[in-house]
Amino acid sequence: MARWEPGARERLVMAAVDLFTEQGYDATTVAQIAERAGVTRSTFFRHFPDKRELLVAGQETLSLLLAEGIAEAPDGVTPLEAVAAGLVRVSGAMGPLNRDLGPRIKAAVAASTELQERDALKTVSLAAAMTDALAARGVPGPTAALAGEMGVLAFKRGYAQWSEVDKSAEGTLAPHTLAALEELRAASASLG
Amino acid sequence: MARWEPGARERLVMAAVDLFTEQGYDATTVAQIAERAGVTRSTFFRHFPDKRELLVAGQETLSLLLAEGIAEAPDGVTPLEAVAAGLVRVSGAMGPLNRDLGPRIKAAVAASTELQERDALKTVSLAAAMTDALAARGVPGPTAALAGEMGVLAFKRGYAQWSEVDKSAEGTLAPHTLAALEELRAASASLG
Repeated sequence: MARWEPGARERLVMAAVDLFTEQGYDATTVAQIAERAGVTRSTFFRHFPDKRELLVAGQETLSLLLAEGIAEAPDGVTPLEAVAAGLVRVSGAMGPLNRDLGPRIKAAVAASTELQERDALKTVSLAAAMTDALAARGVPGPTAALAGEMGVLAFKRGYAQWSEVDKSAEGTLAPHTLAALEELRAASASLG
Repeated sequence: MARWEPGARERLVMAAVDLFTEQGYDATTVAQIAERAGVTRSTFFRHFPDKRELLVAGQETLSLLLAEGIAEAPDGVTPLEAVAAGLVRVSGAMGPLNRDLGPRIKAAVAASTELQERDALKTVSLAAAMTDALAARGVPGPTAALAGEMGVLAFKRGYAQWSEVDKSAEGTLAPHTLAALEELRAASASLG
């Protein structure tokens, strides 16, 4: 099997996260990121508007894929089955870079208030994308809101499990997010 | 019944939200907020570190009250009953200012990316506070996470109902948040 070869965009993300972790987010410049990645500043700006967006670059794609998976789930499936379809769709787009970066992004975010705020907006946006996609299927408001939040929790818990615990080379994200969703579904029976 | 009389802190919040809505968040200065509220700049800085914190000033108090209400719920109650106790505790601290400001804060937040990020972090922090308080009661991780998210949804949905729909002078927040929580509990039975 061919070794995975990152392109300029991936190298920029990896260089940035390494620098954020080594010397802090505030102290890291675009020039340093570009140099570490072996590209020019112009190349950086062809891929990202600034250093902050770089860390959350995948967010819009994530929201889009989750919503698509939910929208295209077969008629008649339950709300959580539709959420599972969204998680499968998005998991298919998550490769080795995403898994390797998970813990490092978490460390960089934990050390910066600015990144925490950006990361929180990502969380809220993902929930809104799933809730809207479920509502568009005719799921009633409160059920759609609840299932959307469960989708975000399942994504986050599954992603953490995949990127921090399961380091096997061939392991994909989907089984972890689906297991987390099933765990939450079971938990919903013991809320009281 | 005596008319409710706002103090300097409350006047600053009302002046700021009015100015954010009239002329935008970015164009509003601390000096303008202080002038509109009829206080000095020094008074502003005795109450808030900057104009952004002003809009989310209540967040830490909110998290604290939610966690306290959950922690002090009687032994043996269900996770959602503990969340309800947290909602009742926090609702008791929400007065006329909070109700009047609800829709205006929402408008100001909708118009500013910076405020959206700060507001998202508030949402995530509230969920974490409730989840941690539930876990401290011995509620298992996935159930605590799910019940914490339901608490945030109930707070937001109930607050919107109270501040945007029920404008009766004597109405308190608690019945709205508890009704929203009950609606979500019922919804959890139809997730599939």
